[in-house]
Amino acid sequence: MARVLRAHVRDDVRTGVFRWLPLLPIAEPVPGLPAGGTPLVEVPRLAEHVGLRRLFLKDETRNPTRCLKDRATAVGVSLAVAEGFRGMYCASAGNAAISLAGFCSQLGLGCHVFVPNSTPAGRLRWLELFGADVVVHAGDYDSAFAAAEHAGSEHGWYSRNCAFNPFLVEGKKTAALEIAEQLEWQAPDLVLAPVGDGCTLGGLGKGFRQLAALGLTDRIPRLVGSQAEGVDPLVRRFKGDSPQTDTAHATEAHSIAVRHPRNAIRVLNEISASGGDLISVPDDAMAEAQALLGSMGGVVAERASAASLAALLTLRESEPLGGVTAVVVVTGGRIDDDV
Amino acid sequence: MARVLRAHVRDDVRTGVFRWLPLLPIAEPVPGLPAGGTPLVEVPRLAEHVGLRRLFLKDETRNPTRCLKDRATAVGVSLAVAEGFRGMYCASAGNAAISLAGFCSQLGLGCHVFVPNSTPAGRLRWLELFGADVVVHAGDYDSAFAAAEHAGSEHGWYSRNCAFNPFLVEGKKTAALEIAEQLEWQAPDLVLAPVGDGCTLGGLGKGFRQLAALGLTDRIPRLVGSQAEGVDPLVRRFKGDSPQTDTAHATEAHSIAVRHPRNAIRVLNEISASGGDLISVPDDAMAEAQALLGSMGGVVAERASAASLAALLTLRESEPLGGVTAVVVVTGGRIDDDV
Repeated sequence: MARVLRAHVRDDVRTGVFRWLPLLPIAEPVPGLPAGGTPLVEVPRLAEHVGLRRLFLKDETRNPTRCLKDRATAVGVSLAVAEGFRGMYCASAGNAAISLAGFCSQLGLGCHVFVPNSTPAGRLRWLELFGADVVVHAGDYDSAFAAAEHAGSEHGWYSRNCAFNPFLVEGKKTAALEIAEQLEWQAPDLVLAPVGDGCTLGGLGKGFRQLAALGLTDRIPRLVGSQAEGVDPLVRRFKGDSPQTDTAHATEAHSIAVRHPRNAIRVLNEISASGGDLISVPDDAMAEAQALLGSMGGVVAERASAASLAALLTLRESEPLGGVTAVVVVTGGRIDDDV
Repeated sequence: MARVLRAHVRDDVRTGVFRWLPLLPIAEPVPGLPAGGTPLVEVPRLAEHVGLRRLFLKDETRNPTRCLKDRATAVGVSLAVAEGFRGMYCASAGNAAISLAGFCSQLGLGCHVFVPNSTPAGRLRWLELFGADVVVHAGDYDSAFAAAEHAGSEHGWYSRNCAFNPFLVEGKKTAALEIAEQLEWQAPDLVLAPVGDGCTLGGLGKGFRQLAALGLTDRIPRLVGSQAEGVDPLVRRFKGDSPQTDTAHATEAHSIAVRHPRNAIRVLNEISASGGDLISVPDDAMAEAQALLGSMGGVVAERASAASLAALLTLRESEPLGGVTAVVVVTGGRIDDDV
């Protein structure tokens, strides 16, 4: 089985998400924007600075709309087209909406997105350029999510909410499959990603488990998630702490500012199964990590995406990492919200 | 020869710029940010709108720092490292400087960039994140160029000015090589790119001529360059018009606002050899083209990069394009300067 799959992947002329078709819940990919196939960039200067054996950045900013979310969208639009839908919807702090809008524009599908009122002007500008139908919701991401689900079911649009449509996480999983292939079928020791609803790290976890189950790798990496200190419900739940009641707390990392995570069970299970951890990081630590990714890694990450490196720097305080090979998933690169 | 090269390219496991090593002026690529290997996205909705047989976007926004300039930088840093330089420099309206800063950060090379005072805040933020040494010059791009060359020769830094260091255009040429490979070794009828100093379209022209000379393709495409109506010295020279004297004219398309183009002879020769054209487009036509690229093509281009599609829409007025296959090179995707 492992041999067959490895040969399939080696010989498939496709790049990116659809290279993994045998492991995806779709019969036929739609043509359109090519998602995935992003580089795994080794960053020796940053590895030395952090004190790791090896450090890689999975540079998801090189997706069509600059974000890992394009992997889920590629699967979502394939399913929507196959099932004859003419319109799609999602709720989003910006990145998922932009991703959906780009794919829908290219294919001529209707695109209806629901974003919170905190959405930065630069993100609204992307949505405008893609010609999306944008509803700026008066509330936060959580209330935009409710409004989106309501409108989607009323109008019969296809859902691109990863936390609602379980097929979409299968797209996100392909980032894990690529990391393993790029490391010549060796799982790294640690894989770090930021956590909002939990879909991305949950998807990565599923990907790594599937690789091991199929015999393509001989183990799964420890998964380390990170949340903003100001909005960290999953960290609290993972550690058994009481929920945050003071909602005056906040974060500039809008992309992960989710107070009611909808893929909590999935992501907590994946982290536990991997022997991993969930870590809160303050906004200023994210800003420092963002500067390090740029000045020593040559990659510009959005603030929320730098939470992963911030978590790695926190982890270093409590355990030795000198022999470790780590992968930081740089989920997005849109910096319009922190200048 | 064609057979050997085609087999080399097919079997080379590398992606991107260094896949073309036999046609590049370097012995050994440096590790680092992987440039090139960008998708050629077919956009049937936009083709129908424009009235072309087929239209493709060469999506250079998917380079490491979002710009075609990374192809030149990849070659430049390889040469600098091979020759033992520890520092590099360039003049730039933003994109080339950002590209150089990203590669230098990743490799630990000193990076000294000279940008005009019109450089938007978003671009300065990228340079800050990459930790570059930035000189914001009091004048425009042309005077920043002079300052950069002066400082570079004084300090013994390696030049990443494509219009000064001829090896760098060889990196840009790889975009043409990729286009031909992606079209299964058929040259398209038309290839369009924006023109500032002239290095990018000049490099594309060299690439297509080289492909034909090697027998990899059986013809060269017509090259169509575009400049902003407010700053269009090369269009005037190409058409035999008198130079622009009223420098009050200007453009929001900073990336191509070059009053004294330094690769004029190269680019004019390439355009002439291809039977091509050079077209001026007003800023509002660029803005419309930018919106079309987004809403029908799913690609967000910076304003200056949309000049190519604007030129195609102008060309449509004067000649029938119904049987034509065209490639629009979307050179960059940083939209911080037009919101």
